[in-house]
Amino acid sequence: MKISEGVEWSCHACAVLAGLPQSVALRASALAAFHELPPAYMAKHLQALSRAGIVRSVRGVRGGYRLARPANEISLWDIRQAIEGTTPDFQCREIRRNGPCSELGASSRPCAIAAAFWAAERAYQQNLQMVTVAHIADGVAKLYGAKGAARFQAWVKEVR
Amino acid sequence: MKISEGVEWSCHACAVLAGLPQSVALRASALAAFHELPPAYMAKHLQALSRAGIVRSVRGVRGGYRLARPANEISLWDIRQAIEGTTPDFQCREIRRNGPCSELGASSRPCAIAAAFWAAERAYQQNLQMVTVAHIADGVAKLYGAKGAARFQAWVKEVR
Repeated sequence: MKISEGVEWSCHACAVLAGLPQSVALRASALAAFHELPPAYMAKHLQALSRAGIVRSVRGVRGGYRLARPANEISLWDIRQAIEGTTPDFQCREIRRNGPCSELGASSRPCAIAAAFWAAERAYQQNLQMVTVAHIADGVAKLYGAKGAARFQAWVKEVR
Repeated sequence: MKISEGVEWSCHACAVLAGLPQSVALRASALAAFHELPPAYMAKHLQALSRAGIVRSVRGVRGGYRLARPANEISLWDIRQAIEGTTPDFQCREIRRNGPCSELGASSRPCAIAAAFWAAERAYQQNLQMVTVAHIADGVAKLYGAKGAARFQAWVKEVR
């Protein structure tokens, strides 16, 4: 069960948006171009991020996408949910209620197998909730340095 | 990214196998029947479990499947891996190496986004590694009680 590549793209796109000057928005095509990704797919993922309240679209000549809230209030878990959906990965179909011993397995308590998978999913979730777009963007800024930051801002001016 | 229902089925099937008397094996069709599952799919999943060394097939008239090792040495993580494969859910395609700032992102360190997802996957894995088929089978035995255990063993005799 691989995670959609849209999660990876969206995390990177949000980190780019976090690096924008105040009041600047970027079009989906520019966000796609920054990482050489297919524009149509990037646009689709940005729409999902918009529905989830992670980015918002700004209309007009200099319109495009911006983060909808501060980067330190957007976790990688938020992004994963926006792209992959909010239902648990493990789906319990209560198969213990079938077959010759069915009524013996029909307990009001959740099945221990489902409980174990859901506990593991909570641990996964808690890990991703601790990492925000701000953390990622700060790391990228350190990696880029002053020269890289200047080049990034020049690119932003060019594509706006 | 839902987990395949084969993971759920396989966990239940292994718990059934853990409840068998010594030297008894069950056919894929019987394991499917116990939870009213499609026999062909159950057989496919049992073959995957066999390849992963979780169950082994016993030939002969009273042949079928048994656990390949003690139930307390088989974790839910082992079963998940047998069915879902061993590659990480998050695939890093290093898209930071593309585009106008590509060489700035080309670090020898793993991308922080990938690192965060892989850390979350390790937490998930550690949770599932702590839960064994023996834990699950013990829980089912408690739920069944003596009367349920008798009915289960009667069913085993009937389908062998």
